[in-house]
Parts: sequence; structure tokens; C-alpha cells
Amino acid sequence: MDGVTVWFTGLLSSGKTTLARALAARLRLERVNVEVLDGDAVRASLSCDLGFSRPDRDENVRRVGYVANLLSRNGVVVLCALVSPYRAARDEVRAAHAGRFFEVYVATPLAVCWERDVKGLYARHQAGTLTGLTGADDPYEPPLAAEVVVPAHEQAPEESVELVWGKLTNR
Amino acid sequence: MDGVTVWFTGLLSSGKTTLARALAARLRLERVNVEVLDGDAVRASLSCDLGFSRPDRDENVRRVGYVANLLSRNGVVVLCALVSPYRAARDEVRAAHAGRFFEVYVATPLAVCWERDVKGLYARHQAGTLTGLTGADDPYEPPLAAEVVVPAHEQAPEESVELVWGKLTNR
Repeated sequence: MDGVTVWFTGLLSSGKTTLARALAARLRLERVNVEVLDGDAVRASLSCDLGFSRPDRDENVRRVGYVANLLSRNGVVVLCALVSPYRAARDEVRAAHAGRFFEVYVATPLAVCWERDVKGLYARHQAGTLTGLTGADDPYEPPLAAEVVVPAHEQAPEESVELVWGKLTNR
Repeated sequence: MDGVTVWFTGLLSSGKTTLARALAARLRLERVNVEVLDGDAVRASLSCDLGFSRPDRDENVRRVGYVANLLSRNGVVVLCALVSPYRAARDEVRAAHAGRFFEVYVATPLAVCWERDVKGLYARHQAGTLTGLTGADDPYEPPLAAEVVVPAHEQAPEESVELVWGKLTNR
């Protein structure tokens, strides 16, 4: 498989990281060079100076896009799992990729994400101790033309992996 | 050739970028996957928020090191050309590389760099309009155990390329 950036976008607790990790495992079985750039990991390293304002979120997306672009043009399949709520920032990364960009919208509805609340952030928002939370009081702009839309709440993770895998290998 | 990060350090106008570009051309002839991460280019993109204080210089080195690490562990030969004046920051990047780090000290003496002054920064310092200039009023800490020390002022660029090439391919 040629290098490509697979960009998972969606709400918090939508299942982006789970899906990215499962796809990475599947790709490694096929001896593909894979890197996972996960939002939490990136914010602990490359973007440790950034917060959650719109400029900071956009800058985070820009940095991850910069790294993914370098990797993918050298043959790596890069799986980016970031909320990346703003369409313009994602589309800027797409434009820089010269066709090597594959957007996956993990379309778990807000109510389901809120129920899961893996990191307890929705609860903190509800308790009034967190503001600027995507999907709550901060916007999320879904892709208008994602390469794949994954109904992650309606199927098993393995089915979601197969869906992305199928579309990715039949581009 | 396996992936490796070749890190060119030295004063401003010492010849780091010239040497990195010439080595990149040589490597591409051999069909090696190469990326050049040049200080000026990085500061216009990944590190556009950073200045020239010690924390900012260290953060710049850390970010370039992060990117170089990802690329080199995926088989890319990454040529980084940065002043990177502080030894501790360079050594931190080396430590993260698990052996894939090759430090090249471009050891052109300050007097020669000052004479060349490619970007006019030494002149600005002398005119009193620039402070915090490495080698002038800001420190430069040369490597203690670089893989190669290049006397770039005493030989033609082609000889410097051959020197680095020879050491790199006979590691």
C-alpha cells in the first residue's frame, strides 16, 4: 500500500482512537509501515504548549498534518485520530497532501458519546467545571465529503475496521 | 541505507544547510528516501510560534527531533540543519533515537562565519539592532562526541559531503 494519511475525525468518545488502533494492527499484519498520531499523545509532546481555543485547535491540526504529510509521502500509512472540529483546518491539511488524504468521519451521535464519556469530560462539563467542550458548548463541523462515514455506534469495532479497510484498499 | 537522523549543528553561516542539501542530492542519486528539515523552513511552519530564547530554541529542537524520529524509524534518511546551540537539547534528541542518530558538527570558526554572514545577522548584531545571536552574545555548545566533525572552512563542499557520506555508510 502506498503512503497515505487516514484522518479520523469525530466527537470525543466517538471511537476514533479505538478504530485507528485496530486498523493499525490490521495493517501491520500486512507488513505495512504504520504510525498512529493520536490526539492525546500529540498533545503530550509536539503540541504540549497548545490549549483548546480555536486558534490552538487549528494549530494542533496543522502540526499533525505537517508531520503526517512528511510521513505519508515517504510511504508510511499514517493514522491520525483527532477531534479536529473545524472543517477549514482539516481541508487545509487535505489540500497540502496532494491526494494522499483519506478522511474518516466517525459519526457516533453526541448522545452515545455522552453516555460513554471515556475521559469523563462530558461529566465535567455538566458539573460546570469544564467549558469549551466540543459538541457541548464548542462547535463540531462534520465533514461534507469524507471518504468514509463510519456508523461506529451501530456496529462492532471489527465491522468498522473492515469498512475503512475496504474503502482504503479500493481507492 | 536504513533510516537515520543526520543532525547538522554549528554556527550561523557555518555551512549546515549547504552541506545537508548536497548530501540529500547525493543520497537521492542512490534512491534513498530523504527529507531535509532545515531550520529556516521549520521556523516558517512547525515552529512558527517560537522565538530565540533558550526555552524556544530547545522546544524547536525537540519538535524537529520528534518529527525526525518518526521519519527515520520508518526508513527515511532525515537531514536536520539547525544551529541547535545547546548540547543538552541535542543529546535529548539523540537519546530518543535508539541509535539512529548521527551528529555532524560543522566546525567553521566564528571569524569565518562572521565574514560570510549569509543572512546579514552578524552585521545587525554589530550595528546593535539584534541581540541573542548565537556565537556573539548567545552561547554555542559544540558537541563533545559528534559522529563527524567537518572542517567546512578548510575544504570544498564536495569534500565535506564525501567525508560525511563515508562515515555514514561505514557506521
